[in-house]
Amino acid sequence: MILYWLDLLGVAVFAVSGVLAAGRKGMDWLGVLVIAALTAIGGGTLRDLLLNRHPIFWIVDTTYLLVIAAAALLTMLYVRWRAPPGKLLLLADAAGLALFTVAGAQVAEAAKLSPIIIVLMGTMTGAAGGVLRDILCAEIPLILRRDIYATAAIAGASFYLLAQMFGMGRPWAFCLGMLVVVLLRAYAILRGWRLPTFSLP
Amino acid sequence: MILYWLDLLGVAVFAVSGVLAAGRKGMDWLGVLVIAALTAIGGGTLRDLLLNRHPIFWIVDTTYLLVIAAAALLTMLYVRWRAPPGKLLLLADAAGLALFTVAGAQVAEAAKLSPIIIVLMGTMTGAAGGVLRDILCAEIPLILRRDIYATAAIAGASFYLLAQMFGMGRPWAFCLGMLVVVLLRAYAILRGWRLPTFSLP
Amino acid sequence: MILYWLDLLGVAVFAVSGVLAAGRKGMDWLGVLVIAALTAIGGGTLRDLLLNRHPIFWIVDTTYLLVIAAAALLTMLYVRWRAPPGKLLLLADAAGLALFTVAGAQVAEAAKLSPIIIVLMGTMTGAAGGVLRDILCAEIPLILRRDIYATAAIAGASFYLLAQMFGMGRPWAFCLGMLVVVLLRAYAILRGWRLPTFSLP
Repeated sequence: MILYWLDLLGVAVFAVSGVLAAGRKGMDWLGVLVIAALTAIGGGTLRDLLLNRHPIFWIVDTTYLLVIAAAALLTMLYVRWRAPPGKLLLLADAAGLALFTVAGAQVAEAAKLSPIIIVLMGTMTGAAGGVLRDILCAEIPLILRRDIYATAAIAGASFYLLAQMFGMGRPWAFCLGMLVVVLLRAYAILRGWRLPTFSLP
Repeated sequence: MILYWLDLLGVAVFAVSGVLAAGRKGMDWLGVLVIAALTAIGGGTLRDLLLNRHPIFWIVDTTYLLVIAAAALLTMLYVRWRAPPGKLLLLADAAGLALFTVAGAQVAEAAKLSPIIIVLMGTMTGAAGGVLRDILCAEIPLILRRDIYATAAIAGASFYLLAQMFGMGRPWAFCLGMLVVVLLRAYAILRGWRLPTFSLP
Repeated sequence: MILYWLDLLGVAVFAVSGVLAAGRKGMDWLGVLVIAALTAIGGGTLRDLLLNRHPIFWIVDTTYLLVIAAAALLTMLYVRWRAPPGKLLLLADAAGLALFTVAGAQVAEAAKLSPIIIVLMGTMTGAAGGVLRDILCAEIPLILRRDIYATAAIAGASFYLLAQMFGMGRPWAFCLGMLVVVLLRAYAILRGWRLPTFSLP
């Protein structure tokens, strides 16, 4: 139950980040809603399509879509009055990434898939929404270019699995995985830490 | 039966709109065919994947692909002789959007999904092909930036549902839904009517 | 068995081509891996989603992902020392395209689909990974703009089918289809042969 509320919170946070990205592209209100929805549920939808999990979560439980619409509209109203709280949002986004990643990993774990696929599905659940958002904005996805973002998700999902292999109970491993993601993200944001880029000579 | 012919007509019209979009990007003949096909059947394909409806319509009935190829080739030949009839095409496109939207809503309705999902699936069936077309052309999708397009689809699908709730028979609701889409589109085209855009201050 | 090894070889070659494309975009190491994977398994994944073939090949057999990771990392190391061998890579890529195309056509054939869908699925298996790679790089996909690439795949898949209709055994038709793709690609590369482009006047 607490997971469900956290899930909705993650969806809301990702919707807000989608709205802010769309706000730099001069889209209309509907376009903003579409980008917000894609950012929020794109990763989980891709995971469910690849794993053949039907019906897809937001098709049976429309609470997700309502939360996205509410979060997007409130954000659009809010930024008329005040600047969005940058660092706070980044932290909220890190919490969303952490939750989606470990929850996505758990879905693949329940389907008895191999460790590498579990980590991949966790990372995809957390990070693919942002990739779809950037594709719709006709940009090279941010997370492919800089920032410890998907990398933090990979680390979190890996710790979630490793901790269980070393005998930790699933709920604790879940918390540990999330903690790893949040800490790595926070550290990367504060220190401007990045992966090395690769350029052809 | 009449619906099937209308469906093929909608596919043809969308293929033409895909060809004209590709013509501004200097693609080769094959690229033009790909864009035409994606514009015409992309929305329905996405709907079927999300709703897990298999086999997908154009895989079992190849008439769709043949109609797309014929429409695309005829368009490529036609524009060598004459300029494409702009306003007429926009109206034909509005008819295609109207038909795909209400037909897509009906598919979701038959699967006993909730009203919000029915409207969403109708809109997606009608409008997602154009989004995919713009992504392949490396552009921010037009319908996210301006114009009453997806909005008209949302209104049409909603009227289709509401009319049935108020006791209207399904065939009449179908026509009403389509009429709403076409009228909104025509009005938007003639008046240059748009949704307000959202920009970060 | 020999097909499986060829399949892995094709995956490796496509991963290398993905790395080289990403290297022109200043992505970080993880972004390069993502592009490499999408280039290598994107076409097959799209085919499996559209044909409802589950579980998807790389989810049950993680060898594919390991081969991609190895090929990508080796390429990133190699290009620090030497320029990538351009023509050789193009030829290797042609071999990968040939194999994926005919193998993809065979998958659709085994599902008893119609000839036009068999050719389409073959072409998609071979060429869609490169399209996804270019979308993520925010570029109009190369194969839509120039070059005999998807066209070679279409020709190869068609010959594979036609040869069987004329009584040729499947293994020989498989080889013939691949040969047609490779020869057309080689000819197109050496002669700079292209499809005519289509531009609105």
